[in-house]
Amino acid sequence: MTAEIVSVGTELLLGQIVDTHAPVMARLLAECGISCTRRTTIGDNWDRLVGSLKEALDRSDLVVTIGGLGPTVDDLTRDGIAAALDDKLIRVPEYEAKLRDFFGARNIEWNPSTARQADRPECGRMVDNPNGTAPGLICEKNGKVVIALPGPKGEFDPMARGPVREYLEHLQGGGVIHSRVLRIVGMGESSVETRVRPLMDGENPTVAPYAQTGEVHLRLTAKAKDREEGERMLDPVEAEIRSLLGNHVYGINEQVLESAVIDLLVSHSQTVAVAESMTGGLLGARLSASPGSSRAFLGGAIVYTVKAKTELGVDENLIKTAGPVSAEVAKALAEATRTRYEATYGIAITGNAGPAPDIDGKPIGLTYISIATPTGTQVSEHRYRGIREDIRHRATQEALAQLRTQLL
Amino acid sequence: MTAEIVSVGTELLLGQIVDTHAPVMARLLAECGISCTRRTTIGDNWDRLVGSLKEALDRSDLVVTIGGLGPTVDDLTRDGIAAALDDKLIRVPEYEAKLRDFFGARNIEWNPSTARQADRPECGRMVDNPNGTAPGLICEKNGKVVIALPGPKGEFDPMARGPVREYLEHLQGGGVIHSRVLRIVGMGESSVETRVRPLMDGENPTVAPYAQTGEVHLRLTAKAKDREEGERMLDPVEAEIRSLLGNHVYGINEQVLESAVIDLLVSHSQTVAVAESMTGGLLGARLSASPGSSRAFLGGAIVYTVKAKTELGVDENLIKTAGPVSAEVAKALAEATRTRYEATYGIAITGNAGPAPDIDGKPIGLTYISIATPTGTQVSEHRYRGIREDIRHRATQEALAQLRTQLL
Repeated sequence: MTAEIVSVGTELLLGQIVDTHAPVMARLLAECGISCTRRTTIGDNWDRLVGSLKEALDRSDLVVTIGGLGPTVDDLTRDGIAAALDDKLIRVPEYEAKLRDFFGARNIEWNPSTARQADRPECGRMVDNPNGTAPGLICEKNGKVVIALPGPKGEFDPMARGPVREYLEHLQGGGVIHSRVLRIVGMGESSVETRVRPLMDGENPTVAPYAQTGEVHLRLTAKAKDREEGERMLDPVEAEIRSLLGNHVYGINEQVLESAVIDLLVSHSQTVAVAESMTGGLLGARLSASPGSSRAFLGGAIVYTVKAKTELGVDENLIKTAGPVSAEVAKALAEATRTRYEATYGIAITGNAGPAPDIDGKPIGLTYISIATPTGTQVSEHRYRGIREDIRHRATQEALAQLRTQLL
Repeated sequence: MTAEIVSVGTELLLGQIVDTHAPVMARLLAECGISCTRRTTIGDNWDRLVGSLKEALDRSDLVVTIGGLGPTVDDLTRDGIAAALDDKLIRVPEYEAKLRDFFGARNIEWNPSTARQADRPECGRMVDNPNGTAPGLICEKNGKVVIALPGPKGEFDPMARGPVREYLEHLQGGGVIHSRVLRIVGMGESSVETRVRPLMDGENPTVAPYAQTGEVHLRLTAKAKDREEGERMLDPVEAEIRSLLGNHVYGINEQVLESAVIDLLVSHSQTVAVAESMTGGLLGARLSASPGSSRAFLGGAIVYTVKAKTELGVDENLIKTAGPVSAEVAKALAEATRTRYEATYGIAITGNAGPAPDIDGKPIGLTYISIATPTGTQVSEHRYRGIREDIRHRATQEALAQLRTQLL
């Protein structure tokens, strides 16, 4: 079975936004054992859209479209699919009623074009969208399948990974490509590759490294009869990698570092509070991103100014003499937030994220990270390169990695 | 003149890496006044590569390929272009000598296949690659043009923005496509469209809406002789839209809402502090994301627990009786953070971001946002849908939008 992906939207075509959904969809197809042979990006243009859908249907068994399902006049995908399949659109009254209820309950003005989202090709069925108003579509006609997914990330992801994945697995009937990602922190890509090199020559399962900001991912992929056989094939490879990399492997698949840290804290019945200068709340935002993080994350202080730092309990003279970006102030902040919020650990980040050297002449990227623990306080100095956003992200990544080491 | 982009590589096709070069190339084409009508991604497969190049040449005047120019057996683009143009490859002895020198000087083993990088179609010329061994290509035959660029970022970027851009400007002989984005908050996509509908029928400039999480963008695009003429054509359209949408237009192009709010605060010599429960630091992270935000953002408290809320100065009995997710607690938090950090405005967010109803039975998505000002405190209630990440983002977006309204 072969498939193609058609991404729809002038903003995508002209490069004003980067298409991250098509890669997700391509990986999902592979995981279900379906060969993706081509991806196309097309603008909000009727003739080109219908043309490219027809060509894709001529070449392939399955076409997945992404985007263009909204209510405005330049949302053409629903109509385009009906045209390419030589089918007609019908309105689903129950869905229109649901949309009217939704708009009514929120006092949002009803616009006649909104009702277009209640249309589907006669040969298709709707895929429920719990996170938005436009449903997805699965259409089957003349031995061909067209699946349509909405563009907004919060709507695309759950629909693609949930009901659409389930449908694809059922459609394919046998044979899957099963993957598992091991997430590694505290080692660079080449160090990881050097250690796992012998495993990278395997043909089934395969092992491939990918560098991310502040971490490395190893993707393990098995071709197998079904998902269970795939799991069994990957288990010994994962065990081998863990014995080669030790504690550097912090999680698998979608688990992010902040959720690994929260899990460790919960399993130790311990807690953490933060004091953030340079990162302004970003570390707290990461620690509170996972469901259930309130079991271990207590909160903290965003200490963007000298006043906010002294308010937390740091000596004003220390800030004057050592400077806000200093090991001394980082240490004092970590200890103060640990005490104030009665946490097992207090973490502080202070630094200069740029774009210019700060008033004390501290260079861009200079960052101090401190962790106050029941047995003492550690401070480390870092010099990050890159843009402001990268520097702030790397600092939170390092703080989380250090707390994790502390917890192991 | 129309163009298409063909990205070549199995890793791209299967979504193992995200294609960031094609968007760069698409923007370059637009800036040179060339309409990009389609982008295709194809794997390292001879028949599909040659097929897609031939189709693109049938449809368009110009085809830009990215990737597949290296020395290994799965680098097929150079040969594929020659086949699609019905041309033959010739070896360039001077370039082969240069490659041999390069490899000799670095003691890298010479491999016969390396010499393939010294080949070019007879109708083409090489584009120098100062950062790698594979040159680019510009081929002209039968009124069609094919440009080939290498895949590695350090090689692609300078070549695309340098000699290729120069060639495209010369090819096009003048004329640019100039865009401007107006960013709108506090109105849905269909309401925006209803109001600006008459402007959307214009052919030059064009006006098109795009929905983002919590805001709407209107893209204005003019085809013009040069950038200056483009600016002059867009000015009256922008003025018309501003008169239709009023204060809902908060910024243009890359300006984000948090930076618009910081700018307003600075211009009023006013300040803001936060108290974040549900968002755990995300609002602070946004307010501190722009350079220079410390002129107006003072910091605040991440009040994830009851204890952290009382520590900021909220009455424990109030939290017990009204519940942490309540208008009363939101108001108390906003006032407490305003007082504690001596800010002009205090903003508080409390709510349940899911994925389950909280212990008091407050439903997922229920959120209270409060702003304490010098003349009083306002609270609003919201019910967001979507995943945890969206709910948290929307809450910070609404808080920023309300603060902006307050400042206008």
